[in-house]
Amino acid sequence: MDLRRLEKTLHDINQFSQSKDGITRLAYSKEERQAAEHFSNLCRQEGMTVRMDTCGNVIVRREGSNPDLPVVACGSHLDTVIQGGRYDGTLGVIAALEVIRSLNDKGVKTKHPIEIIAFACEESARFGVSTIGSKAMAGLLEKESVSELRDSEGKSISDVFSECSLNFSKIERSIRRNEEFKVFFELHIEQGPVLEKKLKQIGIVTGIAAPTRFELKIKGQASHSGTTPMDYRKDAFLGAAEIALQLEQAAKMEASNGTVATVGACEVKPGSMNVIPDLATMKIDIRGTSTDSKNRVIEKLFTSIKQVEEKRSVSIEYSELSNEHPINLDKEVIQSLTESCELKGYTYMHMTSGAGHDAMNMAMLCPTGLIFVPSKNGLSHHPDEYTAIEQIAIGTDLLETAIIEWAGHMQ
Amino acid sequence: MDLRRLEKTLHDINQFSQSKDGITRLAYSKEERQAAEHFSNLCRQEGMTVRMDTCGNVIVRREGSNPDLPVVACGSHLDTVIQGGRYDGTLGVIAALEVIRSLNDKGVKTKHPIEIIAFACEESARFGVSTIGSKAMAGLLEKESVSELRDSEGKSISDVFSECSLNFSKIERSIRRNEEFKVFFELHIEQGPVLEKKLKQIGIVTGIAAPTRFELKIKGQASHSGTTPMDYRKDAFLGAAEIALQLEQAAKMEASNGTVATVGACEVKPGSMNVIPDLATMKIDIRGTSTDSKNRVIEKLFTSIKQVEEKRSVSIEYSELSNEHPINLDKEVIQSLTESCELKGYTYMHMTSGAGHDAMNMAMLCPTGLIFVPSKNGLSHHPDEYTAIEQIAIGTDLLETAIIEWAGHMQ
Repeated sequence: MDLRRLEKTLHDINQFSQSKDGITRLAYSKEERQAAEHFSNLCRQEGMTVRMDTCGNVIVRREGSNPDLPVVACGSHLDTVIQGGRYDGTLGVIAALEVIRSLNDKGVKTKHPIEIIAFACEESARFGVSTIGSKAMAGLLEKESVSELRDSEGKSISDVFSECSLNFSKIERSIRRNEEFKVFFELHIEQGPVLEKKLKQIGIVTGIAAPTRFELKIKGQASHSGTTPMDYRKDAFLGAAEIALQLEQAAKMEASNGTVATVGACEVKPGSMNVIPDLATMKIDIRGTSTDSKNRVIEKLFTSIKQVEEKRSVSIEYSELSNEHPINLDKEVIQSLTESCELKGYTYMHMTSGAGHDAMNMAMLCPTGLIFVPSKNGLSHHPDEYTAIEQIAIGTDLLETAIIEWAGHMQ
Repeated sequence: MDLRRLEKTLHDINQFSQSKDGITRLAYSKEERQAAEHFSNLCRQEGMTVRMDTCGNVIVRREGSNPDLPVVACGSHLDTVIQGGRYDGTLGVIAALEVIRSLNDKGVKTKHPIEIIAFACEESARFGVSTIGSKAMAGLLEKESVSELRDSEGKSISDVFSECSLNFSKIERSIRRNEEFKVFFELHIEQGPVLEKKLKQIGIVTGIAAPTRFELKIKGQASHSGTTPMDYRKDAFLGAAEIALQLEQAAKMEASNGTVATVGACEVKPGSMNVIPDLATMKIDIRGTSTDSKNRVIEKLFTSIKQVEEKRSVSIEYSELSNEHPINLDKEVIQSLTESCELKGYTYMHMTSGAGHDAMNMAMLCPTGLIFVPSKNGLSHHPDEYTAIEQIAIGTDLLETAIIEWAGHMQ
């Protein structure tokens, strides 16, 4: 492994950005397609074959001694959010390329073919839907509903595909079969503070949480803040406050299961200093890898809604915005990554991922492993996103070890 | 008293409105000046003399048998908020006119002169500052700071005065001396639910609350809602929620003193479903007629701020937006209004006013009484503001009784 080379490649690819403050490389934008092309060229230089599927996923292949064996795949994505960081997604693609370069340097051949996949449109920043590329590959894309997506400028996804010389109407051709894959690995930054706080070099992900999301509308009664006694009030905001704190308690009781709950947005109307609020609209995100644990939190949310309705004479409407199911990752893959860490003396921990990743869709196709390296201050989707090159080295080395192990060393 | 006449006069004056939905008669607008002119004409028809001071207050006078005696005054205001109601302010002016008409009908003469004052700019809707007319009369106006006020269209108060043929630079000529007044009465709708809930016809106001207002900025740390464990969060919104609920508790403990506290506005940033809020900005309004009671609530607010800062590792900045002092109304006036209610068999209660009124400034000049009639559903500053004519009749009769008593019946 050549750390300087890895660092330079990461630096070069991050030159493709629309913004100076942080990296802006939206899915299917000129910059993202240029980055994909740049990556493809680097892979060709390593003797790999490059193809792009109908969804815009870049798939590069290093042939195995037996080309008929299922593929050992790895990868991540090159697109970013608006003013995002230099590592989210990009690291997983570039580290995979470094693994191939390292194998080439050492003249290592493998039985199984190796693929790197740079997935298209992992971030929801452009169309409000995430992991479109890996969903398409795993056959999880609902073509009809996705066909109606538009970006913030009102451009339809099918027009955006055309601009990239992609054909949305043939997107189902991106679907691949289980038999094509032996295993998939993704190296990614944690995007959270746990590894840093626990002083661990590696996070071996055991499950990927999926959000269940609600919008709550708490309806009270507007009245004069000076003339309405406390006992006669139907204060929508205080109802919202009570639910938010009870939700926090419910999630804290599920800490051992890693379930989390967040009120990310709360809008208060009319929002005037001297009027008691008659409407509070909250957006709630509940995540966990244990469906039981998540359901207990959701149940407590509903209990809280009822209690607040009665106690405060407010009425509360809720709508479920999404309800996705958590993914448990392959036990054998977790075991093999764990043994590699032990062998190499890397400090590690088993953990869940609260954020979604391409790995969660690939897990539908084959045994899948997700490797985390630390994020400084837990920051991600932010210009200050940072992982030290020494930490990247450890993650990349673990990825290389895993790929060689699963692909079968010939030498 | 002629109820039909009172009703018609109220109806006629409410024809001066910029909006069809509710009454919009902003201070110093064409409509408000027309209403003032219309009112002046009606008073002239009753033989009263009319003058307007430099602030735009309309002062009409019914001479007493001894013109040198101090005036028995009454009144309220003719301006409204945007899409306000038909009674707030206007009722107090029109009911006072009905009292004069009734005295004229009965040929009642009084020793003391009687004045009706239609105060200018009681509502803060135009310039963000309330009771400008009565503040000017009581010498409470800070001319320099008021001179910088602009309306929502950016027009300066001095230009607005010019449009009404008023001269802002001479506003201090509106100041009157204590000796000019014997007493001031204001009849007003309650703008709250208490009289309706307690089934009382009359509220005799003992004190007028003044708001102390704060803006709180709770600063936490933005991070991913999926990847940040509950214990590592610095959630600004949950900090705000906790303070809001503790403030409610603090105010509830002061219920017997009538102190109230309200969070009317709360803005949450960045306000995204999958990001833990790093900033919550709350606007807080605390009111009461007991300074001690209000101070206890404010003290608990500060305790709560400190606790939340420590517990949640957030930092909280606060700024005091205003801190006004409550007004206690004259005991002798309260006593006389109480005796009148007893005598006439009107159901009544002593209560405080959470909203400000012209009466609070007049109380700096002379003994002052404030009489409330019920507001349906406690609604005010709203097109549906409503007080039944039978309830208005009782309030107006009490006002007439008080005026005759204090002005000295000659016949």
